Amino acid sequence: MIAEDLDTAINEWPDRLREGQLATVGGEASELPLPDLVWVLERLRVRDRAIVFRLLPKGLAHEAFERFDEGLRAELFTSLRDDQVITLFGDLDPDDRVHLMDELPANVARKLLQGLSKHERELTAPILGYDRGSIGRWMSTEYVRVLDTQTVLEALTQIRHRGRDAETIYTVPVTDSSKQLVGVVSLRELMLADTGRPVGQIMNEPISVAASEDAEAAARRCLDAQVLALPVVDKEERIVGILTVDDAVRIISQAEEEDAARAGAAEPLGRPYLSTPVRTLVRSRVVWLLLLAVSAVATVGVLDHFEGDLSQAVTLAVFIPLIIGTGGNTGSQAAVTITRAVAVGDVRPRDVGIVLLREIRTGAALGARLGTLAFVAIALVAVFIEGYGLDIGLVVALSMLAICTLAASVGGVIPLFAKAVKIDPAVMSTPFISTFVDATGLILYFVIAKMVLGL
Amino acid sequence: MIAEDLDTAINEWPDRLREGQLATVGGEASELPLPDLVWVLERLRVRDRAIVFRLLPKGLAHEAFERFDEGLRAELFTSLRDDQVITLFGDLDPDDRVHLMDELPANVARKLLQGLSKHERELTAPILGYDRGSIGRWMSTEYVRVLDTQTVLEALTQIRHRGRDAETIYTVPVTDSSKQLVGVVSLRELMLADTGRPVGQIMNEPISVAASEDAEAAARRCLDAQVLALPVVDKEERIVGILTVDDAVRIISQAEEEDAARAGAAEPLGRPYLSTPVRTLVRSRVVWLLLLAVSAVATVGVLDHFEGDLSQAVTLAVFIPLIIGTGGNTGSQAAVTITRAVAVGDVRPRDVGIVLLREIRTGAALGARLGTLAFVAIALVAVFIEGYGLDIGLVVALSMLAICTLAASVGGVIPLFAKAVKIDPAVMSTPFISTFVDATGLILYFVIAKMVLGL
Repeated sequence: MIAEDLDTAINEWPDRLREGQLATVGGEASELPLPDLVWVLERLRVRDRAIVFRLLPKGLAHEAFERFDEGLRAELFTSLRDDQVITLFGDLDPDDRVHLMDELPANVARKLLQGLSKHERELTAPILGYDRGSIGRWMSTEYVRVLDTQTVLEALTQIRHRGRDAETIYTVPVTDSSKQLVGVVSLRELMLADTGRPVGQIMNEPISVAASEDAEAAARRCLDAQVLALPVVDKEERIVGILTVDDAVRIISQAEEEDAARAGAAEPLGRPYLSTPVRTLVRSRVVWLLLLAVSAVATVGVLDHFEGDLSQAVTLAVFIPLIIGTGGNTGSQAAVTITRAVAVGDVRPRDVGIVLLREIRTGAALGARLGTLAFVAIALVAVFIEGYGLDIGLVVALSMLAICTLAASVGGVIPLFAKAVKIDPAVMSTPFISTFVDATGLILYFVIAKMVLGL
Repeated sequence: MIAEDLDTAINEWPDRLREGQLATVGGEASELPLPDLVWVLERLRVRDRAIVFRLLPKGLAHEAFERFDEGLRAELFTSLRDDQVITLFGDLDPDDRVHLMDELPANVARKLLQGLSKHERELTAPILGYDRGSIGRWMSTEYVRVLDTQTVLEALTQIRHRGRDAETIYTVPVTDSSKQLVGVVSLRELMLADTGRPVGQIMNEPISVAASEDAEAAARRCLDAQVLALPVVDKEERIVGILTVDDAVRIISQAEEEDAARAGAAEPLGRPYLSTPVRTLVRSRVVWLLLLAVSAVATVGVLDHFEGDLSQAVTLAVFIPLIIGTGGNTGSQAAVTITRAVAVGDVRPRDVGIVLLREIRTGAALGARLGTLAFVAIALVAVFIEGYGLDIGLVVALSMLAICTLAASVGGVIPLFAKAVKIDPAVMSTPFISTFVDATGLILYFVIAKMVLGL
């Protein structure tokens, strides 16, 4: 899939740059297909990446820049000369420009914006007007629109004339004379239609998104609708931009990376793993670990409280990891399922009642199966090994039933609460739930043990 | 985002169907925009879904069917009458048809295939020839291609004539007379070019995928290349189909769902959560839980082995959940990071050496920070509470250092081994790693405790 020569490039370019063979490296780099070039560049060290980047022909460099991971753009940008910075900034798509500005110091961003041509500034300003995290920040302001009163031939001619700079010409918004969105027509429909018909007769009902809408939700809608682009409208339903499928893919992919990272209690890197310094890896994980360790102090507290019972029946300690591990796993199963369902819009906070009921039933069914198994296993062991008896088996079995039911319900419900109070459900999911379940699970375990064993 | 009336539909349609108001429900359903209709249908009970589906006009029903989650299609399909089955099957895109056949009993699938028109059978056969899991199973065999010797005008005319049935006309593969792929041209380039030029002069170098290639890798390449479609070629570089961006999105989204589920030790549902029966939820989780519980028996074995030491120093038991929790979290942080990096092609199995080194450094840095903190905290507590001393603090601190280093390395390396032996890295990731780290972490903890405390 990835050719050997890309590895060669990564391994050999740095040496050759050090030997001064700039032209050879530049030549080789320019010959690579764009996705491969981006792949290699992202894997070089900061300094080498900047050198190779400056060796590229301008057009290619700018195309490559637009495809870099967010985390790398600002880093690379600040290593360029001022004149390169200005042309590169002017060449970016307006939405990419805004994302870059978000990563740069405010005074640098302001200066760059002032250096733009009037036309480019006019394309950029509307995007800057929307909140970070809204789809308005991702829309393209370079689009072609046609009027419902135009004929198909007029529309096609207009697309031919104005289409060169547009982000896409395959999905064409149709408006009335006041820029109000009244329909959408695909280039395919225009091409296959009678040239004399008015556009209003062949256009489709528009599916659109509001510029202020949450970016991830809007992007999912674009992908669900299986369209190549969605018109973006303001509060008065006037068109202000267009969201293309590749931006939607990028938004979702960033969101997925974030969810995946947070499900494992790390922050997303936003850049390729191998080009991320170890200190950045540490930073992306340490806060989470600390937070979780501090919450895990609750388990220390619980066990300290029951230490008297523990010293009476040390065998109880033997099952602690099994008990809390099972609880943690059951909780995280429910949490990932519901977090995913929330992300794709299958479940909403208002469904909390149904979800709770379903997870209680699921958790109880799982706990009953595991508990039975544990009881049988301990009963068998009790025949051979001293210190294990049916009473311990009963304690473990009942604890499993109780803890699985608790863990599944908590795991199912917490992502919904998080969503309702506008916290990323993935943040609250697996690690927090297992820490919470650890402490409460231990309490259940010891309460059951005290009742059954009569401690 | 999702309108109130969709909720009303879900709540009221079943009652109205029972009251016999079939025409009203059918009418309301037909009025909904397609994505909304799909959303509602997917959330109805099996029986209600089948009834509403049969009330829809044929064209709309077929479009909705193509968008259902995989898991629902076969279920719905088997609830239809024979004549509906035959027209629906004939109407499906060839690649959707093949996916449906994979879900149906072999004899039913064979009979359906025989019932197709010769033309449709010819479009379906090539797809059936490729392995499940390969991109050949997802390609569309309905595409328009043009010759490099044709003029732009001839190409556009051909697209107009043949484009009605094609899956996409925006990315047009260019071949020589022997169907060998020689380039790709976008409809946009054709529309903006001089009509008299030969296509060979304006076409681009083709980026293509081999039909036998892994579906997920090919889909990522399509999205990375930011193209609307990729030509699919056979071993001789002859074109056999086309992969469209919406199929690529679908492939990735299924893969992401699978990874997310497995990171939390559950199997993906392949259908909306709320329409999944509880027994299916239990089934999707129980095998994982059992597997993990059985491996967690290792922790019971370890603790049983050290039970003598435990009864000498019961305070050691108090820190068990904190120690193994921290180990599990560190391991899962590394695992999700590397699993993601493998999925997007940032890291490959051959990078195992670099990854191991980086994760050892990261884990040690994290362990040192957490260990120091734990030592200070326990030292402070020791002033006030009997039974806690600097020696216990030292045991916990050293254990954290050792376990974090171990967990990060194991978590980083295991997904790479899984990938190398062609197991889904997500399967081997978080839950297995934490179970493994639990047992080995406990051994480290007790070995360190015996050394420091002189048990």
